[in-house]
Amino acid sequence: MSDLKAKILTAVRDDLEAIEIALADNLNPHFDLVSQVAGHILFAGGKRLRPLLMVLCARLCGHSGNHTARFATIFEYLHAATLLHDDLVDDADMRRGRPVAHLVWDNPTAVLTGDFLLARGLSTAADTGLCEVIHVIAGITENMSQGEIRQMARKGDLSLSEAEYLEVIRCKTAVLFEGACRTGALIAAAKTERVEALTAYGYHLGLAFQMADDLLDYTQDLTVLGKRAGADLREGKLTLPLIYALSQAPAADRDQMAALIEKPDFSDAEFAALVELLHHHGGIAYTQAQAARHVAAAKSAIEGFAGHAARETLMDIADYALVRKA
Amino acid sequence: MSDLKAKILTAVRDDLEAIEIALADNLNPHFDLVSQVAGHILFAGGKRLRPLLMVLCARLCGHSGNHTARFATIFEYLHAATLLHDDLVDDADMRRGRPVAHLVWDNPTAVLTGDFLLARGLSTAADTGLCEVIHVIAGITENMSQGEIRQMARKGDLSLSEAEYLEVIRCKTAVLFEGACRTGALIAAAKTERVEALTAYGYHLGLAFQMADDLLDYTQDLTVLGKRAGADLREGKLTLPLIYALSQAPAADRDQMAALIEKPDFSDAEFAALVELLHHHGGIAYTQAQAARHVAAAKSAIEGFAGHAARETLMDIADYALVRKA
Repeated sequence: MSDLKAKILTAVRDDLEAIEIALADNLNPHFDLVSQVAGHILFAGGKRLRPLLMVLCARLCGHSGNHTARFATIFEYLHAATLLHDDLVDDADMRRGRPVAHLVWDNPTAVLTGDFLLARGLSTAADTGLCEVIHVIAGITENMSQGEIRQMARKGDLSLSEAEYLEVIRCKTAVLFEGACRTGALIAAAKTERVEALTAYGYHLGLAFQMADDLLDYTQDLTVLGKRAGADLREGKLTLPLIYALSQAPAADRDQMAALIEKPDFSDAEFAALVELLHHHGGIAYTQAQAARHVAAAKSAIEGFAGHAARETLMDIADYALVRKA
Repeated sequence: MSDLKAKILTAVRDDLEAIEIALADNLNPHFDLVSQVAGHILFAGGKRLRPLLMVLCARLCGHSGNHTARFATIFEYLHAATLLHDDLVDDADMRRGRPVAHLVWDNPTAVLTGDFLLARGLSTAADTGLCEVIHVIAGITENMSQGEIRQMARKGDLSLSEAEYLEVIRCKTAVLFEGACRTGALIAAAKTERVEALTAYGYHLGLAFQMADDLLDYTQDLTVLGKRAGADLREGKLTLPLIYALSQAPAADRDQMAALIEKPDFSDAEFAALVELLHHHGGIAYTQAQAARHVAAAKSAIEGFAGHAARETLMDIADYALVRKA
């Protein structure tokens, strides 16, 4: 484990424990099969990054309420709901090193359990009694479903631009990070400028996090990532490393990359050759630079907050987005 | 068209028009494919019964706000979202006389558009600014997904009891009717006893409506219903006519019915023989009587409301639940 990861985990140990308890408690009274399927995705070693962001932002704004961990479950439920539906949409087979829910059970069970987790998240949002929070949560779900549809509609489309890619990852990832941070500030009844600062932190962190994720798909292997490298490409998803390299490469190299995109059953050797081209035409370096730029923007957004342990952890989490290996 | 239906339609003509406009307006700014898929299910000749119930209950409680039709869309969006997911869960091929969305497009598109409509409904609920309304809406979605999972888990299970059937139809139908009526009263800031009375009306109407629907599956044909009779049985769904008949029939007849349940590709003649048995062992008559009991309970719940056109229409709708042919 990296030093940075160890430092973050030490700082948030109690919060993570409270979040784990709340996640299980909030499911408990429900029908067996629902709890079982929801548990399969919820308790498979997720990082709990999204609920943690909410808790840390609430604390940074001086909140010390009792229900923080319970409200934070909203963001893990929403996340798990989208994973359940997305794995089905993407026809994935592995998630976090385990077979996906729609293969362990079946498609209908995965769809309906996703619906249930979505509804559970929204019920919990209603429990905050804060209309703005409820708006944020409902907006997250709208954005995420639209982002996924948009991504699906553009599968394998070589003309996807960087701007369109950014809009996709904003919808599918950044809105949830942003929403978690914003909700933390709102629960703490923070002043508008603090709410906006933490919202900006979450937005930039979300973009950086997704870019790093998209990079990992080209640079990591199964044992670390819990799924096979090249999965995005096999699903026809064009991400920034490839989009940028395509825009820079001469015709011959572009044709070679295009041929691979249109051939989802490519070999490991073909995939390695593609990764080589991505490096060669700057796709990897450009994506790393963009991710670093968003990490810097995230950190700069919270610079104005007075010295506080939560601020330091949020800074560390931003740095960690770039160095994580899974 | 029956006289009763004509009378209801005349009474609610302006409301239906306002609801149609609001349904389209509320979708308009959204991504093309989403609007198209959502429109496929939303604008295929639905009865708009759920939004209409909200509007009528709000009016009965003296509400005359501007946003009534927009808030009413919540209940049609939620309904359409569940239809999209349920058709997929049930592997249905026709809905309202048209091919289902997951066949016109594909499974992922149907899943994600359902998610979007769910989120759109919850966003609109948040716009009411009433936390109790938001709770009601989130609770509806939780109940509906759990009800569907429960129904799915018990497919083809001959031991399903009447009480379990009631719990399934409460979750999958009555909570939405109940929620629409309750929301109408809440938006009108009605007194608690009026809120509860209209909630009871919606609950009983929903149960009666679903029982009538379950009866239609045994008594109507494709041209009227927009889908093939016997569809529930083909999907392994045991409903009250069958549950009751099974409980009353001697062993030989029970075995004959059980054999058909386990054979989803039954012929029209076999199905006709089953319907005959349902009649013979009182399943049809018992279900009609139960539906009538709930219609009476629904009407009795709103008897105390002073004479008002909306009350008369709600009474007519309750009566119509029993006589409708599709």
